[in-house]
Amino acid sequence: MSKTKDQAKSKSGRPEARLPKGLRDIASGEIRAMNAMLAAIREVYETYGFEPLETPAIEYTDALGKFLPDQDRPNEGVFSFQDEDEQWLSLRYDLTAPLARHVAEGLKSQSLGLPFRRYAVGPVWRNEKPGPGRFRQFIQFDADTVGAESVAADAEICMLAADAMEKLGLAGKYTIKVNNRKILDGLLQIVGIDPNSNEDNKKRLAILRSLDKLDKFKSEDIRLLLTTGRRDESGDFTEGAGLLSEQADLLIDFIGRSTELWVPPDQAVDSRVRIDADLRDIDGSGLLCVYDVYAALDAWEQELRDSPIGLQGVQELRSMQELWHSADYGTSRIRIDASVVRGLEYYTGPVFEAELTFEVKNEDGQTVRFGSVGGGGRYDGLVERFTGQKVPATGFSVGVSRLLAALTALNRTSEAASFGPVVVLVMDKAELPRFQRHAQVLRQAGIRAEMYLGSAGMKAQMKYADRRNAPCVVIQGGNEIAEGVVQIKDLIEGAKAAASIKDNKEWKESRPAQVSVPEADLVKTVRELLARHGGGV
Amino acid sequence: MSKTKDQAKSKSGRPEARLPKGLRDIASGEIRAMNAMLAAIREVYETYGFEPLETPAIEYTDALGKFLPDQDRPNEGVFSFQDEDEQWLSLRYDLTAPLARHVAEGLKSQSLGLPFRRYAVGPVWRNEKPGPGRFRQFIQFDADTVGAESVAADAEICMLAADAMEKLGLAGKYTIKVNNRKILDGLLQIVGIDPNSNEDNKKRLAILRSLDKLDKFKSEDIRLLLTTGRRDESGDFTEGAGLLSEQADLLIDFIGRSTELWVPPDQAVDSRVRIDADLRDIDGSGLLCVYDVYAALDAWEQELRDSPIGLQGVQELRSMQELWHSADYGTSRIRIDASVVRGLEYYTGPVFEAELTFEVKNEDGQTVRFGSVGGGGRYDGLVERFTGQKVPATGFSVGVSRLLAALTALNRTSEAASFGPVVVLVMDKAELPRFQRHAQVLRQAGIRAEMYLGSAGMKAQMKYADRRNAPCVVIQGGNEIAEGVVQIKDLIEGAKAAASIKDNKEWKESRPAQVSVPEADLVKTVRELLARHGGGV
Repeated sequence: MSKTKDQAKSKSGRPEARLPKGLRDIASGEIRAMNAMLAAIREVYETYGFEPLETPAIEYTDALGKFLPDQDRPNEGVFSFQDEDEQWLSLRYDLTAPLARHVAEGLKSQSLGLPFRRYAVGPVWRNEKPGPGRFRQFIQFDADTVGAESVAADAEICMLAADAMEKLGLAGKYTIKVNNRKILDGLLQIVGIDPNSNEDNKKRLAILRSLDKLDKFKSEDIRLLLTTGRRDESGDFTEGAGLLSEQADLLIDFIGRSTELWVPPDQAVDSRVRIDADLRDIDGSGLLCVYDVYAALDAWEQELRDSPIGLQGVQELRSMQELWHSADYGTSRIRIDASVVRGLEYYTGPVFEAELTFEVKNEDGQTVRFGSVGGGGRYDGLVERFTGQKVPATGFSVGVSRLLAALTALNRTSEAASFGPVVVLVMDKAELPRFQRHAQVLRQAGIRAEMYLGSAGMKAQMKYADRRNAPCVVIQGGNEIAEGVVQIKDLIEGAKAAASIKDNKEWKESRPAQVSVPEADLVKTVRELLARHGGGV
Repeated sequence: MSKTKDQAKSKSGRPEARLPKGLRDIASGEIRAMNAMLAAIREVYETYGFEPLETPAIEYTDALGKFLPDQDRPNEGVFSFQDEDEQWLSLRYDLTAPLARHVAEGLKSQSLGLPFRRYAVGPVWRNEKPGPGRFRQFIQFDADTVGAESVAADAEICMLAADAMEKLGLAGKYTIKVNNRKILDGLLQIVGIDPNSNEDNKKRLAILRSLDKLDKFKSEDIRLLLTTGRRDESGDFTEGAGLLSEQADLLIDFIGRSTELWVPPDQAVDSRVRIDADLRDIDGSGLLCVYDVYAALDAWEQELRDSPIGLQGVQELRSMQELWHSADYGTSRIRIDASVVRGLEYYTGPVFEAELTFEVKNEDGQTVRFGSVGGGGRYDGLVERFTGQKVPATGFSVGVSRLLAALTALNRTSEAASFGPVVVLVMDKAELPRFQRHAQVLRQAGIRAEMYLGSAGMKAQMKYADRRNAPCVVIQGGNEIAEGVVQIKDLIEGAKAAASIKDNKEWKESRPAQVSVPEADLVKTVRELLARHGGGV
C-alpha cells in the first residue's frame, strides 16, 4: 500500500472524517442570513432587467485561459484534472471567464442577442494558500452587461451596486468608488510608458499592482515598490518596477491626492460646488468637508492634456457623472476617485469598487474602515480571446462572505427563523402516532414543529429542545391524554424567569410558563405564544 | 507542443468556446422555475424542523469512500485530483457521503447533538458516460435525519416527501412507495442466502439489482438474470446471480405480485378493507380497485414466518403505517409496495421512492407513468465507516431536474417573471441621462426596466424589446421632449392586434396600442398596462 493511501487512513484503518484545508461546512444560521442577503441583491438586479444564468463548475482549462505560459499544464492556482480524452478540465475560479465562454458560444451559434445583461451567483474555487477568512471555495455574485460599448452601461452597473447596498440597509454606510483604467494609462503615458506596448506591459502591471496597495501601505513603501524595490520586516525583498523617483512621485501624488476640500460653511455652496457635492458633518473645526467632482475632473483634464487616452478616460467619467447626477445619485453614493486601481490585467476602461465606510476594529485592535466588499470594471477583450472580435463588456462582482461579514458586524442580517421549531416530547413510545399528529397539526398551520425522535428521557428531551432553540415544547403524559389536554411549556418565558428568580426551586414549583389547554386549542395557544415573543408564524 | 494542448485550440490558435461533454448552461426561464420549485420544497422541510447545511464540493476521496477496491486510485465514476500533499481529492457525487463525514466530525468534536435533521441542496458530479438527459453535473435536494433509531423517523421522511409533492401542486398525481430492505433480506433467507454473510454479499447485490429492474424488464428476463444469465438483443451477455429456478420464481412472485384487488362495490367496504384502502374509479368492469395494506402485511407475515429479519421488516412497516394512518395519510399518498428495491448497497431498513403516477408519452410514443422523481431509505452504517459506531440515519433525495421536468410537463412551473423588463428606447444619444432617469423611475416603483444599451437604430431596438419579452417600450423623441410627454407602446396588445388584423399597414397607421402621456404619468400608465395584461408589478 502506497504512502498516499496510508496518509488518508487513521490508525484504526478507518478513514478519518475531515475536510481538505481551506474548505468549510456552513451551518444553518449563516446559510439563512446569506440566502436572505442574496435574495435582496437578486431582487435589485432583476429590477434592472438582468437575467440569471448558470454555468457548470467544470470548464476546459484553455477556455478559462488558465494554461501556464509556454507550458502544457494548467496554472497551479486552479484545480485541474484530465478527462478521458486527456484534455485538461478545471474548476472555475471566477464567474467572468465562463461568461466569456458562454457569450462566444452564443454569438457563434447566433443564439445570443446583444446587449445581454446577466447575473450569476455560485461557488468558485482557487487552488491557493488558504488563510484566516481565505477559503478555497467561496461564493461570488456577479452582474455583467455584454455588448454595450457606451459607458452608460458602466454607469448603470454602479447604480445597480449602489441600489444593492441600499437594499441591504447600508444607506449612508457605503460608497461606490469609480476610476478609469484609461486615466491610469494616461498617467503612464505621461511618465513615458506605452500602455499598448507588449514590452512595457510587465512594467505597467507591476506599477498598477503597487499603486493598488496605496490604501494599505505607506506612500514611502509604494515609492520603493515603484522604483528600486522594497525589503519588508521579515526580510523578503520585492523587486521594484524600475521607475525614476520623479516618475513615482508624479503617480503617487495623482493617485493619493485627496479630492476632498475643507471649507467654511459659506463657501460650501458657492458656484464651484455643484449639486453633487457631499456636505459632510462639521469635524469640530467649523469647516465642511466638500467633494467637488467637477473640480476634480477639470484638474485631471489639465494634468492629462498631453495624453489622448487619459483625456478620453476623463471624458468617459464625465459622461457617467452626468448620468448619475440626472438619476439623483450624489457623490456620497457614487464617487469618482483616482485611488481605485484594481489589480486585474483585463480591465480596459472604468473600474469600480464598493467600499463600506463604517468603522470596525481590525485584528490589531485599530479602528479602520470596513473596506471593499466588491468591485469590477470594463473588460472589452475577454470574449475576443475566442472569437477574434472585440465584444465590449462591463460588470461588478460582490464578495459574498465579506459582505455578509459586514451585515453581521452591523447586526443587519435577517434570519428567516428567529426561533427553532416547536418540539413535541415523546412521553410514551406506544403513543408515537398521537405525538406525531400534534406535530403535523402545527405544521399544517404553518408552524415549524418536530416530534422528538431520539430515545432519551424527559430531561434529555428538554435539553434537546433548548439546543434547538424551540420557543416551546408540547407535553402530554398519561393523565393529559385521559383528560384530552396538552401542556405547553414556554421556553423563552421560562428562560427569562429562571434568569430573574434566584430560588430555582421556587420557580420550578410555580411553573409560570406552562399552561394546560384542550388538544383542540394546541395551534391557537402556540400561535399566541409565538406572537407574544414577536416570532409570528 | 503536445497533442493535449493542440486539441484544446481551434485552427486559428485561439481556444474554442465550448463546454466539456455532459455539462450545460442553464438559461433564465429554467433557473426561475427551478428556484421557485426549490423554495417550495425548502418551505416544507423547514416546517418539519429540518435545518440547512452546506458542505463544499471537494472532499478527500477516502472520506467519500471512493477508492477502487484494492487500489490506490479513485473510482473512475468520480472526478478526482491530488492536492499539494499528494492526497486524493474528489468532487462529491452525492450529498449523503459528505453528510456522513460532517456527522462523524461533529460527533468526534462533540459539536453536534443528535437527533439531527438537515436538508441540503446543491450540485453533485459524476464522471460517467453522459446521455440524453443524463448530465455530469446535476442538482440534488436531500433531507436526512441522523441519530434516530425509531422508524418514526422514516415515517416522517415519507410524510415530508408527500407534503413536498402536494406543495408543488401534485396532489393526486404521486405516490410515495415504501418497502423494507429487511423484507427483501427475509426473502433471501428463505431461499437460503445469508444476508449477513460476506461470501453471499455479491450474490445478494446481484439479486437486488436484478429485482430492481422488474418495472422495466419482462419477468422472464428477470428470471434469467436471477438464474443462468441473459443475452440482450445486441448480443451482450449479463451473468446470472446463480439462483435455482424455484428460488427465482419465489422472489419474482413476491415482489411482482399486485397488492391491488378488484372487487364488486358492495365488497369494497367489507371488514377486510380498512379505512386506508384506496377506492379507485370503476374501470368499465363495474369493479372497484382496492388496496388493502393490512391484508398485504398479514400475507407477508405469513410468508416470512421462518425469517426473523423478514418479520422484523414487516413489523417496522406496520408501525410506520400506524403513524401515517393517525396523521391522515391515505394509501394513495403513501403506500407499502414490495416492488420497491432501490439499488444502493448501503440501505439497511425502510426504502422509499416518490413516483409520479400521471401519464406521459415516452421516446417511443408509448403512454407510460412519469415514474420516479426521488427516493431514499435508512442507512445505519454510513457514519460507522469513520467512527466504528453505528449511527442510525434515514433520508430522502429529490432528483431536481427530473421533478422540474414533471412540473414543466404539467405546466405547473411558476415563473417569477411572466414578462421581461420594460425597455426605454434611446432616440438620441445626447439624451441618455433623460432615458436613464425614465428607467430609474420605473425601477423605483418596483417595475423591471432597462434602458437600451446598444448602438442600433429604432427598428433594431424594437426587435430587441421583442426578444426581451418586454410588455411595452417607452419612446421619447425630440417633439415629445419639447412637449414633456412620453409614448408608451404596448407590445402585447400590439402583437395581438397584428395577429388579428390582416392588413398590416392599416394596423400600423391606427397604432392601437400606443399612448402619449405626460412624463409624470409614466409609472401610473405602465402599471395600468401591466395590470391589464395580468402581470402586476
